[in-house]
Amino acid sequence: MSERKRRRPEAAPPAASTSATKKSRRQDSHAQGLRKQLKPDDQILASLRQMYDDAQSASSNVISLSDLNLSTACREVTDRDVGSVQLAIEGAVLAVARSILAGRGFSFDVPSRAATNQLYVPQLDRIVLRDKSSSRAFANLSTVRKATITARVLSLVYAVLRRDIHVTKRDLFYNDVKLFQDQSQSDAVLDDVSCMLGCTRSSLHVVASEKGVVVGRLVFTDDGDRIDCTKMGIGGKAIPPNIDRVGNLESDALFILLVEKDAAFMRLAEDRFYNRFPCIIVTAKGQPDVATRLFLRRMKTELKLPVLALVDSDPYGLKILSVYMCGSKNMSYDSSNLTTPDIKWLGVRPSDLDKYKVPEQCRLPMTEQDIKAGKDLLEEDFVKRNEGWVRELEMMVKTRQKAEIQALSSFGFQYLTEVYLPLKLQQRDWL
Amino acid sequence: MSERKRRRPEAAPPAASTSATKKSRRQDSHAQGLRKQLKPDDQILASLRQMYDDAQSASSNVISLSDLNLSTACREVTDRDVGSVQLAIEGAVLAVARSILAGRGFSFDVPSRAATNQLYVPQLDRIVLRDKSSSRAFANLSTVRKATITARVLSLVYAVLRRDIHVTKRDLFYNDVKLFQDQSQSDAVLDDVSCMLGCTRSSLHVVASEKGVVVGRLVFTDDGDRIDCTKMGIGGKAIPPNIDRVGNLESDALFILLVEKDAAFMRLAEDRFYNRFPCIIVTAKGQPDVATRLFLRRMKTELKLPVLALVDSDPYGLKILSVYMCGSKNMSYDSSNLTTPDIKWLGVRPSDLDKYKVPEQCRLPMTEQDIKAGKDLLEEDFVKRNEGWVRELEMMVKTRQKAEIQALSSFGFQYLTEVYLPLKLQQRDWL
Repeated sequence: MSERKRRRPEAAPPAASTSATKKSRRQDSHAQGLRKQLKPDDQILASLRQMYDDAQSASSNVISLSDLNLSTACREVTDRDVGSVQLAIEGAVLAVARSILAGRGFSFDVPSRAATNQLYVPQLDRIVLRDKSSSRAFANLSTVRKATITARVLSLVYAVLRRDIHVTKRDLFYNDVKLFQDQSQSDAVLDDVSCMLGCTRSSLHVVASEKGVVVGRLVFTDDGDRIDCTKMGIGGKAIPPNIDRVGNLESDALFILLVEKDAAFMRLAEDRFYNRFPCIIVTAKGQPDVATRLFLRRMKTELKLPVLALVDSDPYGLKILSVYMCGSKNMSYDSSNLTTPDIKWLGVRPSDLDKYKVPEQCRLPMTEQDIKAGKDLLEEDFVKRNEGWVRELEMMVKTRQKAEIQALSSFGFQYLTEVYLPLKLQQRDWL
Repeated sequence: MSERKRRRPEAAPPAASTSATKKSRRQDSHAQGLRKQLKPDDQILASLRQMYDDAQSASSNVISLSDLNLSTACREVTDRDVGSVQLAIEGAVLAVARSILAGRGFSFDVPSRAATNQLYVPQLDRIVLRDKSSSRAFANLSTVRKATITARVLSLVYAVLRRDIHVTKRDLFYNDVKLFQDQSQSDAVLDDVSCMLGCTRSSLHVVASEKGVVVGRLVFTDDGDRIDCTKMGIGGKAIPPNIDRVGNLESDALFILLVEKDAAFMRLAEDRFYNRFPCIIVTAKGQPDVATRLFLRRMKTELKLPVLALVDSDPYGLKILSVYMCGSKNMSYDSSNLTTPDIKWLGVRPSDLDKYKVPEQCRLPMTEQDIKAGKDLLEEDFVKRNEGWVRELEMMVKTRQKAEIQALSSFGFQYLTEVYLPLKLQQRDWL
């Protein structure tokens, strides 16, 4: 469908040429020059197909903790179905009963999620949790509160699973405000319970609110409804909060385009970029939320598609990439489900600013805080292991310049979809 | 479709009863008592149908500025198509040319958007802009910058319309950073241009990013794609940023349920509340964005449906209602397109807290700032004209208690969809 729906440039000169300044004419001619470098789409597509084929064969070979002989030393949670989580809760309660009968009293065995128990595994390129746990006894002043909260959270989660519904952390908190006192307390114990039972928070049916959207060459079911993301207009489909109700992913895309911001997403959706270059376009509108991270991983794993990222050229853009790729530290026990390894940094990269002659006035000076964030990133393992990224980041810190994706609009509103991205794809210019 | 998809309560006792405290047993029995008050759904539906019929007949009678003999004294913008906006821009440029030829120099006539030029019209229940304008001359040191920016924005908007695409304010800014210097400057002039041309910002094809979602008994087209919102799973459909590409709204809903927060939205979507009580459920996930406001108004106007609002019981919840109903002050020139009059406050209302026996520990004390916000609201015209709202707000300020929608979860996770809302609808308990 929808070749009809690709908005193509008119033969008329680009938008910016209505301006009469010399500077903007120079910019235009540069933009036109780059436009001329573009090969026919079928040649670009052939190159993309190669990347796709690589991804299809490569990603079947995922390294796991057991490959590294770490499966006993480290702890990871997995997605589990309702019945199996219910059994796990019953098991945990039986263990407590046995402990009481054996005269050792009411006590839970809870894995430690402290920073000292976290480990970055380079081969996996993500943070995992070491297998250290502590006893949470009822008959102990320092743990009685947490033991009570743990019992209550287990019972609430059990009730949620029995009804086969999904709730938010906030809902859970309100079920016993008097006991929990503060949502941070029920939240923390919820993470403990997730570790204890060895299942993801989604498996507990406690979900985060979603803010991501998806559009493009993807068909999937959301709670039984078949969603065709090529027919979601410009607004796209809201990514469901309940990943376990998502199924039957199908796609003829060659890659996934991960976009940091919704403005760029809208440009791509309106221009139906996915009809010219078959892809799935996804954004979390800024800082990635859990639902979008789960959804991205699900797509990458099931469809075996390469993922290309389009983020701002600043430390924050790279930080967002790191959350998608390596996870956040406080959810390291769930890193295998939440992270998507091997995302390629397509742009906007610091080296693009000169390469694409982004005008000086569209670049922004980095603040001291930006510079510090950039230098901190250079110390991160996930950056260090990619030479290309190190070079780019060093250039950013040295030039002290940053730029948003939107800066490309200075060459015309559709420059992103008509020149920049096609040229990037043609040149396989990702790191 | 989808009766199969309504998640109904089990015969088993509700979730909270697994807890053993006396207090929660008392709460349960109260919740059960309210549940028993529920009449069969067909009786509730009959009552809803009456409200629906009222809305269908009533809203055909919309008061306009001309009814109040204010059409010359006040200025409002309307949605206009691409061709007509292009003509308006050409007209504005010709007016400048004529001014030059007449020896009066290069100058725009720009409506004032200052607070002193704003007027609250009680009959309309919204803020409008008086018709006062000033001259923005090129040959005047105090206006030369703004005149130049105005010319540039007009030319950029013209280019956008010629290509029939949509862009964001940020895109617009990046087209001439050197001139605009700061996005607030291009944004302000964009609003001026909107007023000058007498068309909405959407008509200029400059859109805001969307964050709202919709689910339920609504079918519409988004850029030509047919969207059936009963088949959007739990995630719902993202509300499109470009309202002018939305069309062909159809619905068999009896009302629109406007929800403040996404957690409540998720509960309603997962329980397929719209299958039990035919409705369209919409949320902007907090502070309403322009796209959601436009979409709500469009639904209300075209489908003539009553709108019921479910917000937190705090001043902020009511503030959100006010933005939907009366608009925000800085976009008063566009109030007729952005506002949805006659939204009913369904809940959660301060009086509900006692009526539904929301446990003390689920209520939150109001801060001094909350109290001040509540008192300020009592001075607002849009509150004063609704006695019921005044009483509720006075009660809130007096009891110094607030509560979130989520507080209803203390009676069980599905209490909102199974008891609270059905009972509210049955009792026609809205203000």
